[in-house]
Amino acid sequence: MSDLRKDPVIGRWVIIATERSKRPGALIEDPVVYEEDSCSFCEGHERETPPEVLAFRSKSSLPNERGWWVRVVPNLFPAMKIEGQIRRVGEGMFDKMNGIGAHEVVIESPAHRADMAGMERKQIEEILWAYRERTIDLYGDRRFRYVMIFKNHGARAGATREHSHSQIIALPIVPKRVQEEVEGAASYYDYKERCVFCDMIRQEERDKARIVAANELFIAFHPYASRFPFETWILPRQHESFFSDIQMNEVADLAAILKHLLERFKTVLGSPAFNYVIHTAPHDKEDTPSYHWHLEVIPRMTNIAGFEWGTGFYINPIAPEEAGKRILEGQPLLAAKEAALEPSAG
Amino acid sequence: MSDLRKDPVIGRWVIIATERSKRPGALIEDPVVYEEDSCSFCEGHERETPPEVLAFRSKSSLPNERGWWVRVVPNLFPAMKIEGQIRRVGEGMFDKMNGIGAHEVVIESPAHRADMAGMERKQIEEILWAYRERTIDLYGDRRFRYVMIFKNHGARAGATREHSHSQIIALPIVPKRVQEEVEGAASYYDYKERCVFCDMIRQEERDKARIVAANELFIAFHPYASRFPFETWILPRQHESFFSDIQMNEVADLAAILKHLLERFKTVLGSPAFNYVIHTAPHDKEDTPSYHWHLEVIPRMTNIAGFEWGTGFYINPIAPEEAGKRILEGQPLLAAKEAALEPSAG
Repeated sequence: MSDLRKDPVIGRWVIIATERSKRPGALIEDPVVYEEDSCSFCEGHERETPPEVLAFRSKSSLPNERGWWVRVVPNLFPAMKIEGQIRRVGEGMFDKMNGIGAHEVVIESPAHRADMAGMERKQIEEILWAYRERTIDLYGDRRFRYVMIFKNHGARAGATREHSHSQIIALPIVPKRVQEEVEGAASYYDYKERCVFCDMIRQEERDKARIVAANELFIAFHPYASRFPFETWILPRQHESFFSDIQMNEVADLAAILKHLLERFKTVLGSPAFNYVIHTAPHDKEDTPSYHWHLEVIPRMTNIAGFEWGTGFYINPIAPEEAGKRILEGQPLLAAKEAALEPSAG
Repeated sequence: MSDLRKDPVIGRWVIIATERSKRPGALIEDPVVYEEDSCSFCEGHERETPPEVLAFRSKSSLPNERGWWVRVVPNLFPAMKIEGQIRRVGEGMFDKMNGIGAHEVVIESPAHRADMAGMERKQIEEILWAYRERTIDLYGDRRFRYVMIFKNHGARAGATREHSHSQIIALPIVPKRVQEEVEGAASYYDYKERCVFCDMIRQEERDKARIVAANELFIAFHPYASRFPFETWILPRQHESFFSDIQMNEVADLAAILKHLLERFKTVLGSPAFNYVIHTAPHDKEDTPSYHWHLEVIPRMTNIAGFEWGTGFYINPIAPEEAGKRILEGQPLLAAKEAALEPSAG
């Protein structure tokens, strides 16, 4: 059974999830096997996963049978367990709680080789809508204080499965980084009486140099203080604290901009591995004028080295203005490679 | 020229170091060339690096000639430049300063194939002493507020050179993570009137399960809330805020424990890539009862996935108690591989 343990110096919670060491690829030296024939995420293999918690499927189809286009199932190697009450205990000077939480997988397509950049916009909308549905459902459980949605694409980005998927984790705590963002935005608001993210959108529109895509409801740019080459934030233009308040028309624009961005990454950066994470306010907050939800996309172009790990301080070798220029031009910068599918990492 | 730019939400400074995109391996797709014959860090190639700022060498030898055993030179692709005054400027709503700083390389041996785990203890002492000397010298420059010392070993840990080396970066700011640690330790001290790190040492000695090595002056353990499998902290038993106050006898014990740990990693984990970073109080602090310097070592066993990047929240699949058991037993857990030298990453 897994624990949540708190670092006594900086207060960061860590999941010690011993169940997951059984997962293929948990240690980097275990080769990841990418077998198309035996993939439990593929259509026709529905009985090989835990029963679905949500599926968008044809009316004539049955749960856990064929006929779906997006399917959400509990993770077979969950970082946390859903059953039980939260128990906080001391262990000498240390603090822990039992690993209560939800860990779900969003299977983004019935087809093994589908890739988000190549999907129909409509399909991406359905995936985003599944995120919304699951978030609302999970927040119905009062034990959960934060629902996190993220995607690892490619071995280098930490994916251990080839079949296109994303993950949802519901936690009994608010992660430290989320808390910091919420507090940082609140302190900017206290000083300026404006949302820092809304200000950023206006500044980016004036500067233009870092914007890589925009439509009526969303804007995408490389942030001024990008930690990584080609790091991209996608923000709703309208101030909104919670991702889960997203509406149908917004989902259409978000899907369009995300698809455009991933296509550009494919052309310019040669199908890089990437991660994205939805940053949203914790649900126990009221809707607030200071926090503004957004999606952060990070292509895996460089390794994080010791410097970054030890200090949270980053060296980025490519200025966001230079990155922006490359993305807008749309010319290949790096040769296409099978980097994203390379079965090397854990 | 590089910039330091501040994230307007959480206040994190990032180095935008465009010089470094010229460095071999800056983008992950550039293959790293590991050529023994043309290595500028090797003895006999002293003229291929910038002139040395420190060298421990035989009395009869000349600067920038053969005859040294540890040599410190400016980085040929520095993240920052040493010349100039610090200028803080606004750019619309954003904050930046020019990239003033020092970036040095500690060449740890004249021999290309030397590896820290296989070095004589005496040689490791000399390396640690070079860290101390350079730290004291760099703090003589009043523009620098923090001196960071770290080592990337192996391509997977971000090293772009095979020849054993570490790096020193002097910064005009205190990195956010360092500031958080200092504040976290201070707030524990305010509450308990004890150092949190001293308390941790006592707790680990009682629990025993996570200690992996100890001698008279130092102790090494996997921390209770380890972020990564086999993450190890080495602390001086005696409370001390600054690494740079280390004495000769302490250097001997630190070298011994570090060598022992790296040997165990080699046996048990099959020569993994690793990073270490020295965590020490910023120099503008007085010697304080609340901060306790230490060294954090992280073998690169798993990829950091999207979850960790987006949130600063970690899932660790191996409990530190289990890791501790493996390290103490000293039996191979993973087959030895050339993982650390594998010329794959950036």
